[in-house]
Parts: sequence; structure tokens; C-alpha cells
Amino acid sequence: MVEPLRIALAGLGTVGGGVVRLLDTNRDLIERRAGRAIEIVAVSARDRTKDRGIDLSRFDWTDDTSALAHHPRADVVVELIGGSDGPALTLARATLSAGKAFVTANKAMLAHHGLELAQAAEASGVALKFEAAVAGGVPVVKGLREGAAANAIDRVYGILNGTCNFTLSKMEAENRDFAEVLAEAQALGFAEADPSFDIDGIDAAHKLSILASLAFGTQPAFGDVAITGIRHVLGADIAEAAALGYRVRLVGVAEAGASGLFQRVHPHLVPIDHPLAHTTGSLNAVVADGNFVGRLFFQGRGAGDGPTASAVVADLIDIARGEYGAPYAMPAAALTRPATADAGDRRSRAYLRFAVVDKVGVLAEIAAAMRDAGVSIESLIQRGASPDGHVLVAIVTHEGPERCVAAALEKLRGSQSLAGEPMWMHILA
Amino acid sequence: MVEPLRIALAGLGTVGGGVVRLLDTNRDLIERRAGRAIEIVAVSARDRTKDRGIDLSRFDWTDDTSALAHHPRADVVVELIGGSDGPALTLARATLSAGKAFVTANKAMLAHHGLELAQAAEASGVALKFEAAVAGGVPVVKGLREGAAANAIDRVYGILNGTCNFTLSKMEAENRDFAEVLAEAQALGFAEADPSFDIDGIDAAHKLSILASLAFGTQPAFGDVAITGIRHVLGADIAEAAALGYRVRLVGVAEAGASGLFQRVHPHLVPIDHPLAHTTGSLNAVVADGNFVGRLFFQGRGAGDGPTASAVVADLIDIARGEYGAPYAMPAAALTRPATADAGDRRSRAYLRFAVVDKVGVLAEIAAAMRDAGVSIESLIQRGASPDGHVLVAIVTHEGPERCVAAALEKLRGSQSLAGEPMWMHILA
Repeated sequence: MVEPLRIALAGLGTVGGGVVRLLDTNRDLIERRAGRAIEIVAVSARDRTKDRGIDLSRFDWTDDTSALAHHPRADVVVELIGGSDGPALTLARATLSAGKAFVTANKAMLAHHGLELAQAAEASGVALKFEAAVAGGVPVVKGLREGAAANAIDRVYGILNGTCNFTLSKMEAENRDFAEVLAEAQALGFAEADPSFDIDGIDAAHKLSILASLAFGTQPAFGDVAITGIRHVLGADIAEAAALGYRVRLVGVAEAGASGLFQRVHPHLVPIDHPLAHTTGSLNAVVADGNFVGRLFFQGRGAGDGPTASAVVADLIDIARGEYGAPYAMPAAALTRPATADAGDRRSRAYLRFAVVDKVGVLAEIAAAMRDAGVSIESLIQRGASPDGHVLVAIVTHEGPERCVAAALEKLRGSQSLAGEPMWMHILA
Repeated sequence: MVEPLRIALAGLGTVGGGVVRLLDTNRDLIERRAGRAIEIVAVSARDRTKDRGIDLSRFDWTDDTSALAHHPRADVVVELIGGSDGPALTLARATLSAGKAFVTANKAMLAHHGLELAQAAEASGVALKFEAAVAGGVPVVKGLREGAAANAIDRVYGILNGTCNFTLSKMEAENRDFAEVLAEAQALGFAEADPSFDIDGIDAAHKLSILASLAFGTQPAFGDVAITGIRHVLGADIAEAAALGYRVRLVGVAEAGASGLFQRVHPHLVPIDHPLAHTTGSLNAVVADGNFVGRLFFQGRGAGDGPTASAVVADLIDIARGEYGAPYAMPAAALTRPATADAGDRRSRAYLRFAVVDKVGVLAEIAAAMRDAGVSIESLIQRGASPDGHVLVAIVTHEGPERCVAAALEKLRGSQSLAGEPMWMHILA
């Protein structure tokens, strides 16, 4: 009889509870597949008395989360507390240096401390796994680390935040504005009370930095991700995009170029025939372009207790089977530290939207700024005045260096003709 | 310095050539990711003199393919010959019993002999891997074996044959009939001169039987797959489907039910908002419904030298890393042998199309047969006579047991009112 794989679980929130339920519900199946039982032996959470609908009496309880690292029977610590630093990081460090395997869904911690933790795991010769940290239940970490491992990856990109995608999809379907839809999503529990991490693109950027490391063999470099969220996307932008054959999505993109690694989270116009355009609601999706495989597309549920628990337990099954290795697909020492690519060098088509004052000469001013900066206009739409008296002008440019678009917008900065900041979205090619 | 993983390669056709090119092109990257070099040391193919654009002089050559199993320097044999039996099977058996790892893209061989080969691999304690056998470059074998391993799978289904999907997509886009599009695909090299394996659904059924084993922990049971190809799909069917909000796809479905395992390859009507409806051209796609993860969707290129080589080399990287285990996710002895589910018990909605003689009473006869068999009609469309003088009647039924639909069609068999066989497609729920 093979010994069970024994787990110490830190965090009994939505996801932690999901892991307990999954291991109960699918116990026999998992034992058949993993070749041994997977058993929780110890748990830690903030409040022992809270009713979670789970019988905790069978587990050792500790109030001191970091003590799980030294639990005498645990082979693996699963961290589902969250937060880039604090107790999660303390636990990760203690677990790995104690020579136990560590499984986490914590993208913020990996984005900031992934390299250090990979080094610690290697030094102890134990597993560090984080499938649940990116795209929830969708096995994209495995897809890049293993499935696409034979390929040079040209680009990895995707929809990495379900709250943003839910919000944009709903704005699109119901022709409504951002603030209204967000308030509704909060009321329904689909968005946090403080939605900034989601809405402003930070959560997606954490995940993108993990994907980039796996795809390009680079050290995680969250600080190099250029981030814009969806707060300033108007219902009118979505309608204009639709008229032009696009849908608006918050897309994280990482690309290895001659001048370095390019990483950006930004609202994009996605062509209607692209699979990301059909990724609706709270779904997540990741695309990897490989030099032999071509375009690989992965889609599924990116959050919630069930999908996240599915990914956490998939990691545990890999560990139970002994099928794991370097966390970022190669030894930490082999991960390179690329320069940050200059977005200005990047060639793309742009969607630009201006709210302008309804007076003579405004269009000429905008057009002149574009011309002077060397931006070539493919189409321009001006629709009648909106209720607040402003006129919306939407421009799609021909492909060109992004620095020219930036220069055109700089020329227009402070112009009396503009009412508010212009909106710049990239068109996904 | 770690020793390279040394490969003996059988078959230098499109895919074999792709593997050689991939290992050359991405050599350094693969060595970084795998932790050791992957080197071909020996090859075998039918014709040594054929110009493949590859320098073969650096490899040992043998005319006797089965001799690769005993090549003194090879750790792994890669089989890219094809065919369910013959030289491929001889080589597989010899390799595994010689204690070398075996990697193959051969779905026909796995569908027929997968269990035996898994037993042989286990007996020798070596790897048997076959990512390339299903959906080409898309890592769905890994996705089921590992990514979704924490889930009880309710159903696995997908578009598993690029030739069929290319043909159906083209019929749809250009409003043309099957024979015409097939002839064009053959001329372009997208379809074989003898397209029967593809067009009649056999290739998709081979792949489905592999997915079913992985998803349900069952012995491969190709003989239990009910198979209908796309030969009898008319342009008119596709047009009717589109009018109803569906696209026609050849879908392989495996489902574990109370009465046993259900496996079927059949043309389906796929709702337009389902990701399979947006899987066009020669793409492949697989959906797995798990009890915790929900719907997982994988899409990419299912054939061709690049994608197939990508999957073959991904398997080699897993072997080089030592990250592999039981071929079908659990020991061969643990795979169950389920009963074959009776399709008659299955509840679904049906699309039925009849070519009928344009005379009084035909509709009444069809409607009566439906009523007598207990089939409830949701909609019926009869359009004017076609050029050959027949009238097409398309029916969509409410959900009900498939045995009732079969009984209705049985009642109509031999009717003088019908011109040719009725077409029955299932509506994907």
C-alpha cells in the first residue's frame, strides 16, 4: 500500500472550502488516478468557529498559519490565503525551506516573489506548483510549461480577469456604461467591494507576468507590465467597435522582441472572428502562438471555488504521481532577465476616441495632430452630440509605430477642444 | 553534464520530417527546457534516397524498422509510420519489451491495441506517450490525463478531424455541396485520395476512443463507437441549420451514463454560441465537462507537420524531464470495462431531413410516423422543390428518447414518398 499524500491547508475561504469538498467528493477517483490517496491532515484559517458547511474536526487545527510548514505529517502545504506578502509569503518561505512541497493559487505573490520561491524550491528539491494562479481551472501553466514546450513562443496573450470580462460583456450585451454595470456586478458578488485590483488590470498583470516567464524562460517581471484597466471604456466605445467588426476585451499580451520583452495589459479591440471575441462573461482564455504548433487556445472558468480547486488538486495529483520539475519549466538560474521592450517601437493599429466640444475646427485640430505625428487614419466616425453636449470622435489608424500615436495624443494634451482624456485602445492583430 | 535523450525515429513522412526540423530549429530552447539535449541517433523509412530536404547522413539508417527497438544508443523510439497493425505494431511491441520508451502519433494503433501496449509499457517500466494521436498539436491528452485529473468528467466531446471540419466549413461559407468541396480539398492536398477514414468518421472515432479512456478510466473500446460520417450532409442541411441558429459539425461524444459508456461520432447541429461552432477550417477542438472545473475548451491545429511534431516533441520533453507515468492516467489493470450504453435511452433533440416526392399526403405520412413513435415536433420547414424535383422537409424535434426517433424512421423505411435515406443529426446540448 502506497502512503497517502498528506496536505496541510492554509486558508478556508471560498477556494479552500472548494478544495476540501473536491477531495471529499472525488476521493476514490483521485486515488485511482494519482496512484495514492490525497488527504488533508491539517488546516489553518482566520476563524475556527465560522460555519463553512465542512466538518473540520477530522483535521489538526492551528491558529498559527506558518506552523503548517513544520506539521510533522504534512508532505505538501497548500496556500490559499492570498496577498503578495504577509502570512502567505512567510508560509511559502518556511514551507520550502522545511523541505515540503508548496502549492498556491496566489498570483500576486508569484508576480512579486516567484523567482525567490522557485530558487528555494530548487534548493530543497521540492515541488512549487501554481496552476490555479492563472486562469483558474484552465490548465494554461501546464499548457505552456509542458504542452507547448517544444515551441519557441512568439506571443502569449489572453483574457485573464473574469470580473473585467463579465463587465465588458454585459456592457456590450445591454448597451450600458461601465459604472452602472460594475455596481450591479458588485451587488451580485461577481466583483469585489474594492474592485480596483480587477478593474484596473493589476490582477491580469500578475497573471500575465507568470505566463511570460513560462513562455519565454524569463524571470518574472511584474514591474515591467504596462497596465491600463477598463474604467474608462464607454458604452459608446463598445458600440463603435461593434460597428467596425470588433469586441472590446481587456487583453494581457506578452511578446519577445528584438529589443526585449514586451508585457502589457490594456483594453483591446478584438476582431469578431478571433476566439477571444467569443470568450464572454466571466470566462478566461489564453492563446499561445508557437513556431511549430501555431495558435493554441485554452478557455474555461477563471475563478470560483470549483475551477480553482480543480487546478489546485491537479497540482497535488502531479505531486502524488511524482510528475513535476522546475516550476518555471527550467532551472531558476537559467531564467534570463530581458530588457523591457519600448512600446513605442511596436507597430499596431489604434482605436482612438475623443470627447470633443461641439465647435468649429475641432476635427481639423485632431486631424492635424495626427498628420504632424505621422499617424495615418484609416477611418473616422463622428456621431451627433451626446446628452452632455459633447461629441464623440472615433478614429481607427493604419498600422504604425505606437510612438507616433503617443506623440499625436501629446500634441492634443490640454487642448481646449477636448472634454476629458482621449481613449486609446489597441487593435489585436 | 546530463546525457542527451537519444531518439530512434521510424517514419520520415510529413510528420517525421517535421520532428527532425523541430529538433533542429528549437534545439537550444528544448535543451534549456528539458534539462538535457534531445538528439535523434537513428532513423528508418521506406525509401532512403528520397529527397526530404533533411540531412540524414548524421543519423544511423536502417531499412529494418523493427531493428530500431534494439538500437544500442536509443532511449526512446518514435513511431510515425501509421496503420493500426503491421510494422507500427511490430515496432511498438518490440520497443516496449526491449525496455525503451515509445512515443507515437498513431491513433489507429492505440484505438485497437492501446490496452496491450499500456500493459507492455508498465511491465517494462517505460513511458508510452501519444499526445500527437489526438487533436494534433493541442495538448488534450495531457489536458485530460493531468489538467482535468481532479474532476469526474461528465462528458468529453469535440471536433477531431480537420478534413471533415474543413469540408463542412467550406460548404457553409460557400453554400456548396459535399462532393464538390471534397474534390477541391483533395486537389489542394487537404484530403486524402481515399478520404474514407476521414470523411466516414473512422479517424475521429479512433481519437474519441482514446479520449474516452483518459476521461473515464476505461479500457479503449473503439468497437463500441457508433460512427456516421459527413458524406450525406447536404448544403441544404447546413442552410437549414443556420436558419435555426446552428452550425453543422462532425462531433465525437463520449459520456458515462448509468447504463454504460456512450461513444458516438456523428454530424451534429451545434448552437451558434457554442465554441465548437466557432471552430472553423481544419482546426480541432475538445471540450471536457468536469464536475468541479466546469467546461474546459482546447482548440488548435489538429494535423500537419508542425503541430504534430510539436506534440511528439512535448512527449519527448516530458520523458527527458522524467515527468511521466501511466499512459492512460492510471495503471492498465485499473481501467474498467464498461457496458456499452444503449443510444436509445439517450434523450436529445433531433434534426431530421427528408427528401420527399412532391405529392399529396407526404407530410401527413411523416407526421403520422412521428406521432405514432412518440416523437414531438418542435418545428418543421418544407421548402419548394429542388432542381431534381424532390422537396426537402426539415424537422426539429423536442427532446426525447432517441429510440423514438429511430422507431419513426423505421416506420418510414421503404415508403414510396421518400426519395433516398432520411438524414438524422443530433442537436448538441
